[in-house]
Amino acid sequence: MRLLVKRISMEKFDINKVKLDEKGLMAAIAQDEKTGDVLMIAWMNREALEKTLATRKAHYWSRSRQKLWFKGEESGNVQEVKNIYIDCDNDAILMKVNQIGGAACHTGYKSCFFTEIQKDGALKNVGGEKLFDPEKVYKKK
Amino acid sequence: MRLLVKRISMEKFDINKVKLDEKGLMAAIAQDEKTGDVLMIAWMNREALEKTLATRKAHYWSRSRQKLWFKGEESGNVQEVKNIYIDCDNDAILMKVNQIGGAACHTGYKSCFFTEIQKDGALKNVGGEKLFDPEKVYKKK
Repeated sequence: MRLLVKRISMEKFDINKVKLDEKGLMAAIAQDEKTGDVLMIAWMNREALEKTLATRKAHYWSRSRQKLWFKGEESGNVQEVKNIYIDCDNDAILMKVNQIGGAACHTGYKSCFFTEIQKDGALKNVGGEKLFDPEKVYKKK
Repeated sequence: MRLLVKRISMEKFDINKVKLDEKGLMAAIAQDEKTGDVLMIAWMNREALEKTLATRKAHYWSRSRQKLWFKGEESGNVQEVKNIYIDCDNDAILMKVNQIGGAACHTGYKSCFFTEIQKDGALKNVGGEKLFDPEKVYKKK
């Protein structure tokens, strides 16, 4: 008689294996799930990664404000995480997201990478139309 | 009589305006120019960025080896830079590249982001076929 053994072959994600830098941070890239456009790069600490995984909404660590940053908390432009990947070195995150509002950049452009460095060194704005007016979204306090 | 003035309206890239971190580094993302796949993230110092711009081949700063890293120098899997962008904060680079050999990752996979963290926490290899055998490409010395 053969024993039927249910094999659990799939390894589970272990947040303790993530390699954070000396500041406790790792790079996180957000990519438009539909177009493949790279929208932005920001930083996650352990808490931001945990909250992102738990809520499936992108959370970062704001280096300038030194606090947890729920992307879209103020502007409403939340990033719904459709897929999330960790790299071969366990020290960087890639997310495919549905960017609510269309624009990830605080300037109103879809992507933060709206400035191309051309071969002759000229800077070209390739951002297209601004999708919101930052003055209106981020109200002066 | 009106003076004819040639207007130089396009701003030039100024490497002195790039914001490097306290280690003199900035994040650099390589994206497949054809498929839009995010291939890898690595780091550039000023010299790596200068060499990338001058040669249109990706150069990074290897944090583990603490030296300039001409990607593909050993494996032949050079990244030909088709487009290069700097982000809104002047502290991150995005490159659209033609990845010679097809694989950017040292493991042989196309992308370093070949491990998906699924909703239930299971890790899934989504790397597809390995495009080279690391044992053969990176010969033991």
